[in-house]
Amino acid sequence: MPLDPNATIVLSALKNTPAFTHGVVRDARVRWALEKIGRTYRAELFEGMTPRPDDYREWQPFGQVPALRDGDVQLFETGAILLYLGEQDERLLPREPQARWAATSWLVAALNSVEPPILQIVLLDIFYNGQDWTKAARPAMLDFTNRRLGDVAKALGDREWLTGRFTIADIMMVTVLRQLRHTDIVAQFPNLAAYQARGEARPAFRQAIADQERDLGPPIPMGER
Amino acid sequence: MPLDPNATIVLSALKNTPAFTHGVVRDARVRWALEKIGRTYRAELFEGMTPRPDDYREWQPFGQVPALRDGDVQLFETGAILLYLGEQDERLLPREPQARWAATSWLVAALNSVEPPILQIVLLDIFYNGQDWTKAARPAMLDFTNRRLGDVAKALGDREWLTGRFTIADIMMVTVLRQLRHTDIVAQFPNLAAYQARGEARPAFRQAIADQERDLGPPIPMGER
Repeated sequence: MPLDPNATIVLSALKNTPAFTHGVVRDARVRWALEKIGRTYRAELFEGMTPRPDDYREWQPFGQVPALRDGDVQLFETGAILLYLGEQDERLLPREPQARWAATSWLVAALNSVEPPILQIVLLDIFYNGQDWTKAARPAMLDFTNRRLGDVAKALGDREWLTGRFTIADIMMVTVLRQLRHTDIVAQFPNLAAYQARGEARPAFRQAIADQERDLGPPIPMGER
Repeated sequence: MPLDPNATIVLSALKNTPAFTHGVVRDARVRWALEKIGRTYRAELFEGMTPRPDDYREWQPFGQVPALRDGDVQLFETGAILLYLGEQDERLLPREPQARWAATSWLVAALNSVEPPILQIVLLDIFYNGQDWTKAARPAMLDFTNRRLGDVAKALGDREWLTGRFTIADIMMVTVLRQLRHTDIVAQFPNLAAYQARGEARPAFRQAIADQERDLGPPIPMGER
């Protein structure tokens, strides 16, 4: 049970956010990794709907969550945090050079080749929803997203995980794909949808989401923003 | 002089692309790092305006450049490649834990918090240019970009480099910012513009761009696509 008020690892996370964020706030990526290796941590919770305190920027320059502190080391960006934890535990990141760098390549691909088009869909459908250009923009954005998802699906083939065995690359890719859960986009790629479902069925993922949910508290209605 | 036809490091790159890509194709990031540490490499060039060969996907699943091979290890995504080279040379990535993970955090921030909004501007201005929704979309995208650049500018302050000394985080951030060179967006943040100019003035950067330029050959007119 990785939650421990006296743990040396501190993770920043949110409380009081709207329903659409529940289950996709990015601290879930780090909770999943910590849960998998049984590292205890405590969450430091910030109000979701108001700007972070000014001094939080010294920990996370963009005011985002999560950021991590582990004794004397503090870092931010889920990609960096997963690499940090991966170095500490082979169950997250293999030691054999080719396996290690393949997993690192896929972790970065999830963040820089797959998430950017997915973010565009999320922005159109949720954040900019109702602006009159979004309908005309969506086909171009969807085409971009589909091309990237098609590439991932092709590379994955019938493998269980991106690099054969489970690594931080899969934690990243599954949580990136999950941001499209309000659409049927991933479902167009059956092996990719099955891969995402396989990740979401893992006990460490389910515990991470349950812990995030408890910390978030009841969803805030969007109208109260 | 890092170019060597017998080098163990092989970098994939392009030839024959339109002018707007010259100086910003992403192999420049890796060339810059290799140049800085004096590692020899050879470039394997692919035609820029036709799809990569099918077997290239085994090296780079998205068909993008660059990808890197170093003896038995092959990897892709500039973020992963810079981390790989950083591990091999302290001049690219410091060894002291806090310095190392701060640089890694900023490298990932460049890729996942700064480049995605910049990519949206590039898509609107260059790839989707002329579609009638782009004009209405740009203010929202510009606002998103400006918020992220403002955060970077604030964190940078009057430091010379993101984490104090020059690291792979600066190679990444400078080349990410550079993608906005067709706009005056970065110029609105004087310390950030000066930071980008400082990076672009470094001899290793200039050599990397010159080598890329020679490999690309004369720009292909857009109309000939």
